[in-house]
Amino acid sequence: MSFTPTITQDFLYSQIADRIEKQIEQNVLKSGDKLLSVRSLSKEQGISISTAYTAYVQLENKGLIEARPKSGYYVKFSSNHIPTLTSSKKSIDSIENVSVDDMIAIIYKNITEEGILKLSVATPSIELIPAAKLNKSMMEAIRKSPHSCISYEDIQGNLLLRKQIAKYCFSWGGNINEDDVVTTQGCMEALVFCLKAVTEPGDTVAIENPTYFGIFNVMKSLGLKVLEIPLNPVTGLDLEYLETAIEKIEVKACLFVPSFSNPMGCCMPDDRKKQLVNLLGTKNIPLIEDDIYGAMYFGKTRPKTCKSFDKKGIVMLCSSVSKSLAPGYRVGWVIPGKFKAKIINIKLMHTVSSATPTQAAIGHFFETGRYDLHMRNLRKALHSQCLKYIQAINKFFPDDTKISQPQGGYVLWIEMNKKINAFDVFKDALKQNISISPGQIFSTDASFSNYIRISFGIPYSDALENSLKILGDIVKKRI
Amino acid sequence: MSFTPTITQDFLYSQIADRIEKQIEQNVLKSGDKLLSVRSLSKEQGISISTAYTAYVQLENKGLIEARPKSGYYVKFSSNHIPTLTSSKKSIDSIENVSVDDMIAIIYKNITEEGILKLSVATPSIELIPAAKLNKSMMEAIRKSPHSCISYEDIQGNLLLRKQIAKYCFSWGGNINEDDVVTTQGCMEALVFCLKAVTEPGDTVAIENPTYFGIFNVMKSLGLKVLEIPLNPVTGLDLEYLETAIEKIEVKACLFVPSFSNPMGCCMPDDRKKQLVNLLGTKNIPLIEDDIYGAMYFGKTRPKTCKSFDKKGIVMLCSSVSKSLAPGYRVGWVIPGKFKAKIINIKLMHTVSSATPTQAAIGHFFETGRYDLHMRNLRKALHSQCLKYIQAINKFFPDDTKISQPQGGYVLWIEMNKKINAFDVFKDALKQNISISPGQIFSTDASFSNYIRISFGIPYSDALENSLKILGDIVKKRI
Repeated sequence: MSFTPTITQDFLYSQIADRIEKQIEQNVLKSGDKLLSVRSLSKEQGISISTAYTAYVQLENKGLIEARPKSGYYVKFSSNHIPTLTSSKKSIDSIENVSVDDMIAIIYKNITEEGILKLSVATPSIELIPAAKLNKSMMEAIRKSPHSCISYEDIQGNLLLRKQIAKYCFSWGGNINEDDVVTTQGCMEALVFCLKAVTEPGDTVAIENPTYFGIFNVMKSLGLKVLEIPLNPVTGLDLEYLETAIEKIEVKACLFVPSFSNPMGCCMPDDRKKQLVNLLGTKNIPLIEDDIYGAMYFGKTRPKTCKSFDKKGIVMLCSSVSKSLAPGYRVGWVIPGKFKAKIINIKLMHTVSSATPTQAAIGHFFETGRYDLHMRNLRKALHSQCLKYIQAINKFFPDDTKISQPQGGYVLWIEMNKKINAFDVFKDALKQNISISPGQIFSTDASFSNYIRISFGIPYSDALENSLKILGDIVKKRI
Repeated sequence: MSFTPTITQDFLYSQIADRIEKQIEQNVLKSGDKLLSVRSLSKEQGISISTAYTAYVQLENKGLIEARPKSGYYVKFSSNHIPTLTSSKKSIDSIENVSVDDMIAIIYKNITEEGILKLSVATPSIELIPAAKLNKSMMEAIRKSPHSCISYEDIQGNLLLRKQIAKYCFSWGGNINEDDVVTTQGCMEALVFCLKAVTEPGDTVAIENPTYFGIFNVMKSLGLKVLEIPLNPVTGLDLEYLETAIEKIEVKACLFVPSFSNPMGCCMPDDRKKQLVNLLGTKNIPLIEDDIYGAMYFGKTRPKTCKSFDKKGIVMLCSSVSKSLAPGYRVGWVIPGKFKAKIINIKLMHTVSSATPTQAAIGHFFETGRYDLHMRNLRKALHSQCLKYIQAINKFFPDDTKISQPQGGYVLWIEMNKKINAFDVFKDALKQNISISPGQIFSTDASFSNYIRISFGIPYSDALENSLKILGDIVKKRI
């Protein structure tokens, strides 16, 4: 047998062999993978047995595959067996004049990357999640489902889950039943559906300033303009500013995070929430209430929601279990008030229905009381972490640093000396394998350039304390 | 103790009791449900222990809840214990001049309704699905995941799943690797993302005529205009018509189902697919290829995809496991060619990432070879069901009935006498608890009013044969 390549491109067996070779080269087929039998290959590709056989012989001659007696053909060579130079990472230094969009892209890229301390991600650390119990709920939910969770779920959402969500609404002053709830693929999808239900491209939506960067992306994607309403660090939304603004500008909807806004962490007192709902009610402006952090309160009682003051059905409350239990499950919901029919219709058009097994598992986890117990533990853990993070930042950061005092949620909003560019801090930190969120990405005009957001979702430890010390040193050096 | 209502609305305990009563009335709390302890209620609502206690006593006095010694308070009464009159269903007869939208809404409503023979839904019957094996894949995937599938999944999609999808592409002539694949929540979401990537509201998109009714909904939702291209029952898309049309009208994208179109069932021959890709390539018009039925072929080999002829990266191939394995898992994907970055960005904005457990389970199901085996069985079953359905329709329907001869997929397209209104047939059938799809919903102008679509996804049986006979009788009576 010879290894000399011959001009055989035009033969069918050679075409087939070339395509398999490409799969091996690209690592789609890996060393040790079993190939189709000659018979199956011939069937699959609609070629004769002898053509299929010849293709394999050609690959065998090249040393790419091997025939094992009585077993069939296997991939022998795989390009990942040859040590290659590690591809040079695009240096973070080369990113100088980046746009806010680029910053956001870089931050998202880090969500699943290994080896980086993710102080930029406002989700619970895996240590805080009762994974075994949730797995159990998944198994039991599949077992209990008449169709093993294989069939399409009800378009409005899994019934058990909707009932449980309705039950939990009692804690924030809601009298909701399962028919008022529509499930979604996480809170973000809920927000998108709400925006689609009440706006057209070109419309203006009022949002908080500063606001979660994901919101800007969504607004842009839907062709919406934003009107940024300032926040007070303690009482939240500046209602007087909003009132004046909506007199002057036609606002089609508001999207606010009244309980534990992101990144500022403030929570509107009940009476101001009521005032907000009344104000928007008289103007007939829908309020999309992002309540994703509402259940993560550190005080004695859960803050009420705007929805609880909503008599006209103008409030669409959105939430999920992504911050409290399982981001990967993508289970969220909306309580859409008078926009229910529209929301269901939009959901139908975009996704037909949400995934059955994940909804059923979360429904089961709620029903068994596991969620209640977990949330009590989670709130305690977050509160204590929050305090420890604040103390450490106080200790390690320059003296002129100001820190928010959130009463719930996941994040600290840190104001540094005006001379400091948060994006520089971000870049320096990433070199030390720590990711934080630079303040620039929380507004449309890259104000807040001397702010950073830090999540305290990761349990406190010596290693973590050391990372906060490193961060403090970075900031000190930048003054 | 007295049952006389006293004027106590203004007391806090009474407000709390009223809200709990409402939950019981609305069945959010059901007979036998355990209530919070007095202590927990006081904590949750921020009220004193005595107020919480008094609220429960008031509910106890009303006979709504009961205290069980050493156990706590339980709901005693539940409104669903009182037999109520069954609510009168809105008669289907009252639907006379319904719009296409209304028809579609009625059909979707039936997707999850019990007791109706769903010949309108083009998905596999649960009997055809290896549920136990899929469950096993779910358990194993969760067990193997470092974070029990709780964390956010990679934004582009689960790596194992993407590798497996890439591997399967070999069967349709693709040389794809995992980096070319983006996962989505079902095929519908993939189509929406593709449309969003290449069009703006007001743009025109070419689609097939007849086409799947879900497509119209999506187009409307995105503010797109449609240009309908006729189909040939055997060779599929009328390329000559398309060529002329795109000379005259600015078409921003095409969305076609080249293999086993829905509802007509036709499959474009390979050379015509190649011609289509070349034509669109010269005009630089992106092709969204809905390949959801491509793997459900009855012939010897899987039809090639347009994607396999795509050298310029203009074809975005969309598919899912909703038709082949598990609609409820909402696992789909797109191979977006040169639009990859845009698609990932849109996915990020709309849903952050897709659900982790369902993607991991399907990845595992593919990897173990279970999918391959299942698909061989499914194809055989569908082919045999298709032939039996055709024979029965031939036998029971009027002699002038014409039936499509699909070489794959799930549906039969049935042309009846011109005098027959398919929506009448739909209504008559629903009265007999059979749902079919009337032809009106498969085009923008409600042409095809004498056509119906029947899915052959349900295994053939005597009962099924009888239902087809009932359908035949309905049609005969309508002539």
